Parts: sequence; structure tokens; C-alpha cells
Amino acid sequence: MRTPRVPDPRVCSIDAALKIIGEKWSLLIIREITFGQHRFDDIVFNTGGSRDILAARLRSLQETGLVRREPYEAKPERFEYHLTEAGEQLFTVMQSIRDWGDRYARTDPENIVSFYHDCGARLRPELICQDCGGPIDASNLHGDREVHRSDLPAS
Amino acid sequence: MRTPRVPDPRVCSIDAALKIIGEKWSLLIIREITFGQHRFDDIVFNTGGSRDILAARLRSLQETGLVRREPYEAKPERFEYHLTEAGEQLFTVMQSIRDWGDRYARTDPENIVSFYHDCGARLRPELICQDCGGPIDASNLHGDREVHRSDLPAS
Repeated sequence: MRTPRVPDPRVCSIDAALKIIGEKWSLLIIREITFGQHRFDDIVFNTGGSRDILAARLRSLQETGLVRREPYEAKPERFEYHLTEAGEQLFTVMQSIRDWGDRYARTDPENIVSFYHDCGARLRPELICQDCGGPIDASNLHGDREVHRSDLPAS
Repeated sequence: MRTPRVPDPRVCSIDAALKIIGEKWSLLIIREITFGQHRFDDIVFNTGGSRDILAARLRSLQETGLVRREPYEAKPERFEYHLTEAGEQLFTVMQSIRDWGDRYARTDPENIVSFYHDCGARLRPELICQDCGGPIDASNLHGDREVHRSDLPAS
């Protein structure tokens, strides 16, 4: 039996990103703003989240710099929500999640919304290396630091 | 002032996917198994999550068919965790999140792990259309159903 070890979590950008967006309502808010829904009531309508939770997530997304608020009416003062650059750049993450969801998370294929690329094809996204254009998968990547730690001595 | 509307959430694969993986510990477990960590103690060590939470998430990931358990020792009975095809296919999602996290979620750039593609380049992933090879962004996609609903009548 191995001696219990004190956890030593990886310092990792997946972890850092999930601290900001690793919560269903935050990413659904980003989805709505990407789809052109900039007003609180429309975000509530299209996500179905509770007003309290969505308001809290919107505040948090502003604090972390993914969303900014702009006035669109003076009396009474009303605001619209827009994405910052960091928020807009979540587009790739969202499309990757949507594509995976289409394939593995849906039990109602008849309701899946098809997306089309400007080339005319039904969208099948693929992640490639910008330098060589080749596909990226678990077999053709390596990190510059130790990522496998199961062989560390137990204490 | 608009009449309050009863929410009518989009039926959406992002939502369906986030119901399964929209939680930090679930995706960090998938990250660990992708990195070759198949044993519970190693997953605890490398994520820093509580044993109770990680055990619950592993059960849930088995129920949703992303992870399967295989015995590696008979007395006492011990198990290793492996990804199913659906779990393996989260690789693109993870790389998209990691890339975004590298750029927008880290306050400690000195600790960012660089990944390299087999072509030798430092990894800069890009999401493209498999059919035409062109980039995918918010400006060159359209859905086959109404996705903008702010103009619906209020009641």
C-alpha cells in the first residue's frame, strides 16, 4: 500500500480557465451575447436560468474582464452587455463544446441545430496546428515539463 | 416597459455538454486520464480536489459514459480509470480551453507549460472547417434555425 501523499495540483491553464468559465451559466451567458442577445431579459429568456444566478454570473464575468456593460437608456438607466476581446475569443471553446455535445451529449438528435460555414458545408470543426496545418490529437503533442507523475515516489 | 416573458431556453448542445462536463473537477479528471493518470490516488494528487468530490465525479462520468473502470488488482480489488471514445473526444475541447487559458486566464505566465506539435512548432491551435480548411469565427457561421430571439413580441 502506498503512503498517502499531500496533493500537489498541476499549475495549468485548463484549471485557470475553468475557474472563470467552468460553470454552466457563465458559458451560456457568453453564448447568448455571441448570438446577439445583449439585454438581461433576453439572456434570462434564452438560457432559462434564474435572474439572481444570471445577475451574479454577469457581475463575475465583468470582474474577470470577459463582459462589459454599456448604457443604452438614460431614464431609467439601462445597460446592455457586450463581450470583451477575451470573451469573444471563447468562440473556439464554445464551438468545440457544441460539436462534442452534438455528437455525444444529445438524446434528441431531431432538435440539433446545424451550423453552416460560409463555404456552404455543414460545419465539422477540426483543431489543427497553425504552423503545419496538421491535426492535433493526444498522440502528436508533448509538453515541455513533466506531465506524467504517477511514478513519483510515494513520500 | 416590456411584459415579462416566461423563459424558453434554447435546446442546445452547449447546454447538453455542460450538463455533463460543465464542472471544474469533471474536466480536470478527464485531463488527468488523458495525461496517463489512471489511478484514483494519482488523480487526487494531480488535481488537488477532495477525495469525496472526485469519487462522486468519477461515478457520474461513468454513468454518462465518458469514463470506464477496469480492475488491475484482485486482492484487494482495485480499479483503474480509462476514457471511453466520448471521453477521448473531449481532447479538442480541452486544448481549446487550455489555449484560451494560456492567453486570458493566467496571471503567472512564467509557469505556463508550452506544448509542442509533432511538427516541432510550439502549439498554436486553430479551429477550421474540415471541408474548406478555412478558419471558423463568429462572422462566417450561420445556424439553420432562428438563433436571435430578441425581436420576438413580448407576449
